[in-house]
Formats: sequence, C-alpha cells, structure tokens
Amino acid sequence: MTVAARPVVPAERFAARLGAAGEAAAASGVSALLIGVGSDLRYLTGYEAMPLERLTLLVVPAGDEPFIVVPRLERGAAEAGLRTAVRIATWDETDDPYALATAGLSGADRVAVSDTMLAMHVLRLQAALGAATTFELASGVLRSLRMVKDADEVTLLRLAAEAADRVVARIAAGRLIGRTEADVAAEVREQLIAEGHDEAHFAIVGSGPNSASPHHEASERVISAGEPIVLDIGGTLGGYGSDITRTLWVTGGDPANGPDERFRHLFNVLYNAQAAGTAAVRPGIACEAIDAAARAPIEAEGYGEAFFHRTGHGIGLEGHEDPYLVAGSDLPLDVGMAFSVEPGIYLPGVYGARIEDIVVCGPGGPEVLNRAPRELYVVDG
Amino acid sequence: MTVAARPVVPAERFAARLGAAGEAAAASGVSALLIGVGSDLRYLTGYEAMPLERLTLLVVPAGDEPFIVVPRLERGAAEAGLRTAVRIATWDETDDPYALATAGLSGADRVAVSDTMLAMHVLRLQAALGAATTFELASGVLRSLRMVKDADEVTLLRLAAEAADRVVARIAAGRLIGRTEADVAAEVREQLIAEGHDEAHFAIVGSGPNSASPHHEASERVISAGEPIVLDIGGTLGGYGSDITRTLWVTGGDPANGPDERFRHLFNVLYNAQAAGTAAVRPGIACEAIDAAARAPIEAEGYGEAFFHRTGHGIGLEGHEDPYLVAGSDLPLDVGMAFSVEPGIYLPGVYGARIEDIVVCGPGGPEVLNRAPRELYVVDG
Repeated sequence: MTVAARPVVPAERFAARLGAAGEAAAASGVSALLIGVGSDLRYLTGYEAMPLERLTLLVVPAGDEPFIVVPRLERGAAEAGLRTAVRIATWDETDDPYALATAGLSGADRVAVSDTMLAMHVLRLQAALGAATTFELASGVLRSLRMVKDADEVTLLRLAAEAADRVVARIAAGRLIGRTEADVAAEVREQLIAEGHDEAHFAIVGSGPNSASPHHEASERVISAGEPIVLDIGGTLGGYGSDITRTLWVTGGDPANGPDERFRHLFNVLYNAQAAGTAAVRPGIACEAIDAAARAPIEAEGYGEAFFHRTGHGIGLEGHEDPYLVAGSDLPLDVGMAFSVEPGIYLPGVYGARIEDIVVCGPGGPEVLNRAPRELYVVDG
Repeated sequence: MTVAARPVVPAERFAARLGAAGEAAAASGVSALLIGVGSDLRYLTGYEAMPLERLTLLVVPAGDEPFIVVPRLERGAAEAGLRTAVRIATWDETDDPYALATAGLSGADRVAVSDTMLAMHVLRLQAALGAATTFELASGVLRSLRMVKDADEVTLLRLAAEAADRVVARIAAGRLIGRTEADVAAEVREQLIAEGHDEAHFAIVGSGPNSASPHHEASERVISAGEPIVLDIGGTLGGYGSDITRTLWVTGGDPANGPDERFRHLFNVLYNAQAAGTAAVRPGIACEAIDAAARAPIEAEGYGEAFFHRTGHGIGLEGHEDPYLVAGSDLPLDVGMAFSVEPGIYLPGVYGARIEDIVVCGPGGPEVLNRAPRELYVVDG
C-alpha cells in the first residue's frame, strides 16, 4: 500500500520551538521546564526516547541554554534522536540523576514538569529541589505552542485522517455479520498499519447494545444482522494522530433488518448535532461554545442525558491533548488548532451512535480533515 | 503457531492481593495507596485500563474498603475489567475527580502514589490534599508483594521466556547478511507475536560497531559477513515480560570471516561473568552481590570500564521493575523473585557483546527460564 509522501519537520523548527518554550517559561515566571520522555520532548527536540525507569530529562531553564540528562546507556540513542543541538549530560548507574538535573535550580520558586512525566521522577525531582520549589504542569507553558499546529503538522494530521477514512470505507464494505467484534478490531489495526500508520492505538467496535458504551472494548460478541456498530479507530502516522468514528447498521442484505424508526431519528439528531458543532468552529469562539452548539440539538430532542461526554479533544502528537471542547472551558479557538468533534447518543442496553471528525480551525471556519461520508452506513455486512 | 495453555490468575488472588496491599499500607503508616492506570492496578485488580487524561484511580485506604474512581465513560470497561469486587465511583465530565478521590483523606499525613502515575494526576492530587500531606511512591509499599512471583506468574514468565527462545533460534538460523537491522527487528516483532506474545516491546539488533551500543535502536545499517550482532528482544505474554539477549557472529559461510581472537576472548570473559552472576543467585544474597559476582570476572580481565550498566532488573508485569541488581542495593533476594542477569562488554566504535537470561530465585539457587544456548552463535547468516 503506497501512501502520499509525508513532511519531515526540519531541524530549524525544533530549535525555534525550544527557543519559544524558553521564552514562554520566562514570560510565565517559571524557572525551568523539566521535560521527561514523551510528546513534549518529541515536540521540542524530535527525540522519541524509550520510556524507562532511568531518568531522561530535558531541562529548559528560562533565559539559559537547554540541556538533556540521559543515562550513559542511552547516549547513542539521544545523539541519534535529537534533531537539534542540545548539550547532553550523561549519568552512570550509581550516580544521582535528579541532583544532576536540578543542580542549577536551587532556590527556584517554580518549575514546570511535563504532564506525562512518571510519578517516580516527579517525586524525586520534588525531593531534590525541596519544599520551597512549587511544581506545576508544563502544559501551562507549552499548551499555547503545541495547540497551534503548523502547516507540516496539519499535513500529517490530514494524511493520518485520510488513511483512517480509507480503513473505515473498507471495513464498512466488508463482511461483518458472523464475525466477533475483536476479529473486526484486529482487521482495523492491520489496515491502519497497511495504510501507513506507525501504530494502531485503538479500534472500538461496539455492536448491538455495545454501541451504547462509548469506550467499549472490542469483545467476543458476534455481530448479527439488524443492529448498529459504532466504529471508532485511530493511531499515529508520522507521530500525529488519527481518530474517526462512524456508525454502521448491518442488514444482511434484507431490508427488513434495516434500522428502526427510533434509531433513524436518534441518528438524524446526532448528525445534525455533529454538523452544528463543526459549523460553529471559528477563530475566537470559546471551546465550551462548540460543546454547547453540538449539545443543543441533542438536548432539544430530549436526548441530553444520553450524551454524557464532552464534544471533543485536541489531537496532535498525543491522541488526547489540549484544547478540550468541554463545558467550562472558555479557551478561545485559534487558527491551527486541531481537535475532534464527536457527539454521541447512547441508550444503555439498547444501542447508541457517534460521529467523529478531526477538524482544524481555519481562518474562515472549520477545515474538516476526514472525508468519509458521515451518514449512517446501512450495509449488507 | 500453537502455544502451551497459560494460567489465568483466579479472582480470589486479586482479592488477596488487595487485602495484602491494604495491610502493607497500614503497616508502613501510609493512609492510602492511590493507584493510577498501569501495572499496579492490573496486579491488584486485573483491570487493564487505558491510560487516559481522565482520572482512573484505585484508592486503597489503610484499614478500609478500597474503591475505584472512574470516568462515567469508562464504567462499562471497569465493570468488565475488574477481576475482584471493588466499589466503583464514577465522575461526570465537569466533576472534579481529584476531590472525589481524596474526600476521605483530608488530614492524611502520608499517601503513596503508583510509580507510573502521570504528573498531571500527581500534581492535582497534591493540590487536592494540600501541603500537609506527604506523597511517596507506592513501590515502597507494594514492592515486597510484587517482587515475589507466585506459581502462576512464574509459569507466565517461563512461557514468555520459552517463546522468546524460539524466536532467537529462528532468527539465528535465518538469513541476516544483506538485510538491514530494522528489517531483522521487524521480523523479530512478528515472530514474538506469532509465538503468542501480546505485544513485542523491543527488538535491539546491533550489528558491527552498533553492537557496542547497549540500547541501540535498530537502524538502516546493512548487516555484512564478519561481524557480531547483539540481539536483545522481548515483549509480554499474558501480561508478563520476556527479555533475552544473545550474541551472534555472521560469517557468510566463510570460516575466514569468523570472530577474531579479541572478540573470542571478550566473549569468553562475558560468558563466564554471566554464568558467575547466575550461579550467585540464592535466597538471602544481596542484589549488589549478584552485580559484583558478574562484574568481577570482567574487571579481572581489564574490561571493567566496558561494562558500564547494572547487571539486571526485575521483570513481571513491567519489563523493568524491582529488584534491580545494581551496586548499592543491599536488598536480599527472596524465593520467587524474577530478574534478568545480563552483563555486557562494549568497546565503542569496535564491537560489543551481551548475554541475558531471565532467572527466578529458587529455594536452592537460580532457576533459569531461558533455555536457548548462551554460547556465541557463529552462523552463516
């Protein structure tokens, strides 16, 4: 399977991001960013380090040169993985890497740690710095940078979305009846990889009553004619996430097994809600207003209780990241922000439906990356 | 590929582990264990929750009933995943789950969080409890339970080890010359899955000078005749880890391309060191003494500087966990502890070698789970 050429983030971009992170830290009064293994490290330096119990830590002091503390064992991997020049400080097995990392920070009022740093590192850094230093999350500083995707990042999100679109089309056109959810999920994962994904992270296949469980784990339930399937799949391509949901109804080729009137109504309400949420996207609008726009048509039809999750989440190097489209978030959307719009309606024990696209906030409104049809897929299965 | 039947940890065992964890917390003066998504949660309840930004937290108060806080969205998954009865407290999208989790803990002196909890949860739990509550790592309490494997856990480790043994044998017998390290690594991953692994976590293929980099990332380097390959592979089977390293030398069928005298000597020193480390395993011996036993033969031959990592790490539900066989650890081995014994000798820019087995401390000495020959694999490739 061939895929379109994908952009490689140029080395200068990492230097620029690191510089901007240091400036943002200084502007917010934080003495240093302490960035462990994970997407912040990848965003700032390109280094995709293995998550290990041995400390790897990028230190970005406000107004000073960044450096990275790595186990001696990982020096080669760090040299190969860092896409921009960062001084490497190695530590040996019996050294204290926390002392090494914090040596220049004694007396710091505030430091910020990456949101996905492991507790084993957080607590040891706290012990090394002492109670006078307050710890906060680096997303407070980095969120404003990472939320706004540049053109290369949007291209990667688009390639990921289009690959996932093709997988949805193929699954919807294939055999479903008589197979277990888990079997279909395994095919989804294989196809995501075949379509150029680095990794297939999830494949929700919720059939019949399982369609009413939003994060249903694909099970040994056998799919049969005359029921819906919620298909919610995704992974990463070039590091950037895909995440699409479509709802199917399998008939076995017999029109008598088509969706009942209640489901058709529920789905139409949902379709309009998802369209309304997407249409509301524009620079300056608050995240909670998108959530409200998608929720209003559902509440108006009496399904408010049946839509019990937020409308969407940001996506990029992480599958779920800022901004979150949720009641209570007054964060305004900005051009280049990327997120899911994914309302759902769930009737426990009966059935449910969800529609999800990845949307980028463009200067004039929404740019929807997924192109797969959003209508109910009534298929033979 | 068929694999031997694997044990399923019975439901009573989880109840017993939870009970023991609560007692251990009480004995150590900790008010509660706060267990996030990860191997501690799986160990205590069987629940393999997805790592998410939404808080899932098992609270084990000392001397009181445990309960688990889960997002409403995950309630179905938690009910299906929990292997023992635990009260479930759900929270809605606009609730504060940290307040919900800590409501019964106000005034606590000390709480312990799971070592792999994400900083975003650690800092919010700290904020919810306030500065009067000291946070420490749950491994301080749970280590003594998790380090000692029961018979079912040892069986799973053995099945994982034997599956990895078969992959090593097949890779060593197959074509290697003319292929890239990355291509061989991809085959390793496929074969681990084919041999019944849940996931293939790593496949280090370090050829030629790359064999001198212990955590080398398999690269586009093409393997050629007359050089060594360090093959270090592993994943999980039934949740439990495999991790084996063997060193190969590829000749292309021409004896003139065999290992040089220096490499033969280096490897023999390593072989004896790995055997000495393994032979030292017995109940009551300190972890650092195993490290010293493996290190002594290497230092005696002047290679001390070339063995710059610890001798081993524990293994179980995590690939690296307690006990660590490292200088400075006076922790005594106990019957049922499982760990790697993996000295290496690395000559930067030239070549290197490593031998690694998973070993269980038996009542009378070491029980080595890997059965693949440990000698240098001189193969045609």
